[in-house]
Amino acid sequence: MAQMSDNVGVRKRVVILGGGFGGINAAMRLGNLPVDVTLVDRRNHHTFQPLLYQVALAVLSPGEIAQPIRSILRDYQNIEVLMDEAVGFDIAQQHVKFKTGAEIEYDYLIVATGSTHSYFGRDDWAKLAPGLKTVEDATEIRRRVLLAFELAERQMQEVGSHPPLNFVIIGGGPTGVELAGAISDIAKLYMTKDFRHIDPKMAQVLILEGSPHILGAYPEDLQAKALDQLRDLGINVRTHAKVTDVQPGYVMLGDERIDAVVTLWAAGVQASPLGKLLGFETDRRGCVLVDAHLNPPGHPEIFICGDLAHVEQDGKQVPGVAQPAMQMGAYAARRIARLVAADFGSDGSGINAPFHYFDKGDMATIGRKAAVANIKWPFKGHWSGFPAWFVWLVVHIFFLIGFRNRMAVFRQWAWTYLTFNDGVRLITGSQELPGWANQDGSQRPLDLGSPNT
Amino acid sequence: MAQMSDNVGVRKRVVILGGGFGGINAAMRLGNLPVDVTLVDRRNHHTFQPLLYQVALAVLSPGEIAQPIRSILRDYQNIEVLMDEAVGFDIAQQHVKFKTGAEIEYDYLIVATGSTHSYFGRDDWAKLAPGLKTVEDATEIRRRVLLAFELAERQMQEVGSHPPLNFVIIGGGPTGVELAGAISDIAKLYMTKDFRHIDPKMAQVLILEGSPHILGAYPEDLQAKALDQLRDLGINVRTHAKVTDVQPGYVMLGDERIDAVVTLWAAGVQASPLGKLLGFETDRRGCVLVDAHLNPPGHPEIFICGDLAHVEQDGKQVPGVAQPAMQMGAYAARRIARLVAADFGSDGSGINAPFHYFDKGDMATIGRKAAVANIKWPFKGHWSGFPAWFVWLVVHIFFLIGFRNRMAVFRQWAWTYLTFNDGVRLITGSQELPGWANQDGSQRPLDLGSPNT
Repeated sequence: MAQMSDNVGVRKRVVILGGGFGGINAAMRLGNLPVDVTLVDRRNHHTFQPLLYQVALAVLSPGEIAQPIRSILRDYQNIEVLMDEAVGFDIAQQHVKFKTGAEIEYDYLIVATGSTHSYFGRDDWAKLAPGLKTVEDATEIRRRVLLAFELAERQMQEVGSHPPLNFVIIGGGPTGVELAGAISDIAKLYMTKDFRHIDPKMAQVLILEGSPHILGAYPEDLQAKALDQLRDLGINVRTHAKVTDVQPGYVMLGDERIDAVVTLWAAGVQASPLGKLLGFETDRRGCVLVDAHLNPPGHPEIFICGDLAHVEQDGKQVPGVAQPAMQMGAYAARRIARLVAADFGSDGSGINAPFHYFDKGDMATIGRKAAVANIKWPFKGHWSGFPAWFVWLVVHIFFLIGFRNRMAVFRQWAWTYLTFNDGVRLITGSQELPGWANQDGSQRPLDLGSPNT
Repeated sequence: MAQMSDNVGVRKRVVILGGGFGGINAAMRLGNLPVDVTLVDRRNHHTFQPLLYQVALAVLSPGEIAQPIRSILRDYQNIEVLMDEAVGFDIAQQHVKFKTGAEIEYDYLIVATGSTHSYFGRDDWAKLAPGLKTVEDATEIRRRVLLAFELAERQMQEVGSHPPLNFVIIGGGPTGVELAGAISDIAKLYMTKDFRHIDPKMAQVLILEGSPHILGAYPEDLQAKALDQLRDLGINVRTHAKVTDVQPGYVMLGDERIDAVVTLWAAGVQASPLGKLLGFETDRRGCVLVDAHLNPPGHPEIFICGDLAHVEQDGKQVPGVAQPAMQMGAYAARRIARLVAADFGSDGSGINAPFHYFDKGDMATIGRKAAVANIKWPFKGHWSGFPAWFVWLVVHIFFLIGFRNRMAVFRQWAWTYLTFNDGVRLITGSQELPGWANQDGSQRPLDLGSPNT
């Protein structure tokens, strides 16, 4: 190996697009191997998305779940990080093109740029119902939720009444369920002592799910348990509820109008546009169809990882969550390492092993003491309630990247859990305070628009 | 006292405008006294401004130095917090007017809305050279400084050269000196292992001070010491340097052009516009001239505290920093308590004691191991270097509000100091990555504009 890495002339260049779970795991596996790696991301930090909803609801700070990509990879001398935006490819010449006009050549390419919100063609809804993908999304949701309580309190002080505090979450997948539980917690546990005029406990949280079931990917018994746990928290759930319009202050289900001080989007995702730009066949979400080696057909030098990859296993699509992304990243790195070793005369053993998603199960929290967990490894079991929540806690601290963040999150959770007091309820961003009255003096619905992003 | 507080009909209403050091200290002193207090701020949080520069340079997180005003005051049942923006007064009727059109009546009014940046009439400079007053300012400065290094690295990777990393700070007061030291630290200590193509140590920091001396409020020997310590860090200082124009990528000193990747503003402040709206005489910065009781002439029911007050003592104006603001807030609260007690037949002892600023001294850090301290209490002394820095550290942890924040900041400092590694170097906010080339392909200066605020 030492000999190979001295042999600079033949070192292969691996370009990784995306610093999410797929990209970071690929890079870490390639660290200190005899290849040159360039990891490219538009952002300077990796975000631990499974805990993003806790930033949105003011339990954690952005710095506790996001970490600069350079810091994560600083000790691997063969990896460089480039903050730039890829905008296209020259597949034949093996080039990636950037927004600046620059191009980088690759021997192997890993595309792991993930997914973004899909508003099903109604991009005008994005400002009215923010989704949760980035740190900025999280602080914007935090701003809206906290501001709703502040403005209701203000209205009570100034005119003696306020519109009902209705929080509507569109989408009943894990993100929707976790956001709902967290909003309920913040209203019922943490904010009760803060206000003099309103009762934060009166806040209503409603999940609107278009399909017949929330948590569609979970077994039926856990769906039912989740529904029970949501109802215990006073959260309303409506299934078969297809939102037809989103407006400031309300959403429409066909002819039915549902008032909403804050509307959040947890309904649809679509693949990063880079998927389509590669020029290979994609599914209806824009995910690239790949073979058992995560390669698009005929291109063994290109790997698609994470949410951007459409991988079928046991007749089902591998879901777009953290675990498969991490495993795909690691697989791509391992395969590249073997291909490179084979060039140097390795026997190529295991080189053709296909990607296999090792499914350890799924978990979603529901507030601060309950969860559902569909555990598949190291044992099988459907857990719910407090035990599931505790397992969730341990797993998420374990998978956070970086000792410092692990400690910080653990301390913050312990503090919050013990004191019912959390200290990151900052409203930052847009400094314009919305009014409560129309020109004629009548009250109007709160409009918390003008997001940061 | 118990009898008085039962006597609800005659309870006086105190309205406090501003949740900075003056307002918060006034409110805390009035907590649980027989008065009704309403504290009004446009923002939901109190910001510990002396440590804001550490957020700007990615040592601390916003949540560690800012705390929701409601949380600080939650245990005082006689205090309510209103998130709103005062826009005027009816002094005769004793009303405060809000942007919403609502009005609140007061028996006593404390105006402590502080100060903001002054660009000396050139408000167009604000976007080009952000100042440091709010959490948003700090994250915007953080974005620009970190992005400058990222874009230089990108340019090296893509075209093999980059413009020099020149950071220019306009203003050599404590904020300018602390920002300069912190940028130098981040470049020379924390980022060296992160980049492969640029050498962050090559960053140049320049302070431009219009007057003959930096740290104008400090004794001459400490000014000289500060200059030495800045030079030890490789920071350039130019005095008599009056900036005549600020443009993207450079500033002008008369005919001399000085290139600047990032320009920061630490030069001038002006009083909050509410000072002028009160209608009393103000000085040229907009600070309200007050008497020995902090009252504008003829209005014993109105108190002006903090940066907004023009108070003379020993022939000099009391400076607009944290200590006097805290003392003024406490004084106003004490005097109101005595006036209220006198209404109930107290002997009025001490009621006419004038405000006296008890000056314990001033401190400014210069990087992570040095500082200057002009200590006046509990002993007199001019300290510099490491001992001054250590005193600074202890004092700032002590004065931070809230046990949780104190612990968090202490831990973060210890971690940073021991490991040279800090984990909050997040670039958030504007997601547009500036390019490095003009249309004709020539390189252009980095333009890091489009701030969040």
